[in-house]
Amino acid sequence: MLLARVAGTVVSTSKEPRIEGIKLLLLEKVDPSTMEGKKDWVVAMDGVGAGPGELVMYVSGSSSRMTAVTEGRPSDAAVIAIVDAVDMGGRAVYRKDAADSASQDAS
Amino acid sequence: MLLARVAGTVVSTSKEPRIEGIKLLLLEKVDPSTMEGKKDWVVAMDGVGAGPGELVMYVSGSSSRMTAVTEGRPSDAAVIAIVDAVDMGGRAVYRKDAADSASQDAS
Amino acid sequence: MLLARVAGTVVSTSKEPRIEGIKLLLLEKVDPSTMEGKKDWVVAMDGVGAGPGELVMYVSGSSSRMTAVTEGRPSDAAVIAIVDAVDMGGRAVYRKDAADSASQDAS
Amino acid sequence: MLLARVAGTVVSTSKEPRIEGIKLLLLEKVDPSTMEGKKDWVVAMDGVGAGPGELVMYVSGSSSRMTAVTEGRPSDAAVIAIVDAVDMGGRAVYRKDAADSASQDAS
Amino acid sequence: MLLARVAGTVVSTSKEPRIEGIKLLLLEKVDPSTMEGKKDWVVAMDGVGAGPGELVMYVSGSSSRMTAVTEGRPSDAAVIAIVDAVDMGGRAVYRKDAADSASQDAS
Repeated sequence: MLLARVAGTVVSTSKEPRIEGIKLLLLEKVDPSTMEGKKDWVVAMDGVGAGPGELVMYVSGSSSRMTAVTEGRPSDAAVIAIVDAVDMGGRAVYRKDAADSASQDAS
Repeated sequence: MLLARVAGTVVSTSKEPRIEGIKLLLLEKVDPSTMEGKKDWVVAMDGVGAGPGELVMYVSGSSSRMTAVTEGRPSDAAVIAIVDAVDMGGRAVYRKDAADSASQDAS
Repeated sequence: MLLARVAGTVVSTSKEPRIEGIKLLLLEKVDPSTMEGKKDWVVAMDGVGAGPGELVMYVSGSSSRMTAVTEGRPSDAAVIAIVDAVDMGGRAVYRKDAADSASQDAS
Repeated sequence: MLLARVAGTVVSTSKEPRIEGIKLLLLEKVDPSTMEGKKDWVVAMDGVGAGPGELVMYVSGSSSRMTAVTEGRPSDAAVIAIVDAVDMGGRAVYRKDAADSASQDAS
Repeated sequence: MLLARVAGTVVSTSKEPRIEGIKLLLLEKVDPSTMEGKKDWVVAMDGVGAGPGELVMYVSGSSSRMTAVTEGRPSDAAVIAIVDAVDMGGRAVYRKDAADSASQDAS
């Protein structure tokens, strides 16, 4: 799985019927050593109700179809967690409580 | 899923029988922060009737077989949506209404 | 799917029994905007009888097992089409009729 | 499979129910020729009880669901081994006994 | 599939039970146009009894579980052939008979 920040949304009316009703989030992958965006983007189906600016974890490939929201749908990326905390080397590199200001600094 | 622009088509007569009748679109991946092409290309099966220059979303891997058009076919990429709008940070970075002129500027 | 040119062959006698009798093609991926080789290589199972220098389309991942030739075999890449034509922006960037001379120029 | 060092952990409360109770490890991929971190990160489910700083091997894709811990869960990466030794060209490039000091030097 | 040279081995005692008894080979990917190592590494399960320095072909993803050795195991890479010969553009770029000396020169 990879860490990413919710950067926006993608909207479509002409689409494969099996993705009707699915919220499509535009994610920017995040480097966990700096918590900055990597200018690398992916569109993921939202399985957890993630909001703009939130740090999330998403799963790629066939496993992205294994959530309550995405089952049976043509998905290759799905958000499966809103991240509360990331620790590296015993040090807190991310706390959700401080996320809003941090994500604004980074963007 | 990734965003891409329909750049062209691929035609073949000598092919695996299971891809007979499938329209093959040449896509150029798009950077959503600039909406410019990334000079990175993929051939995808068309599941939604996308036309030249249109911004689309495609799905990779085994999920690309999970559309009405591609089921049971040897596909690793399928267009599953024509994109109407992309928003980032509360700002509209793409509107389909303005797409034709925008895609001509970017190419 | 990706476009590639048949660059050569790979031969093996000590191998997994399930790939016995399969022709292994060495492919060089091609940039469709220039039709030049990318110095990026992959070995694919041949499902369509492609010959040296021909431009082909291959499929990756689990779908590469979904051809008449590769079914039930440990494949992650299979040639599924010999390309006749590639068009980009309404312009012909490749015609098979001119392929032999073009591929020699590019190599 | 790839070699990586356990760099930290990821914690989440708002998540897909099927990943409840799973320990999420933040891994830094390791170059086996130098045993140094590659500044390339992935989050993997822990199937073997790996601890901070340990060198592990993880598996990606659908196979990451084929462990006692991850079966039926939306995983695209799972730790399947704590590495004891890596040999290259008949030479020991890693021994777990010396790992703690080595990982501190490299970080 | 990709070409690689057997660079070493990985040993583990604390591991997922389903990989017990499997030989883990450390592979360095090879550029077929130069037959030199790419400093890009992967760990693969050995399905053919490959030895150090040998040029092999490995398969990635779900297909790596489709060998006599890896069936039902959490594998994302498996060696499926020891390569005897690679030809490019009608020219022999590799012959196994000359492999031992060539691999020593390249390392």
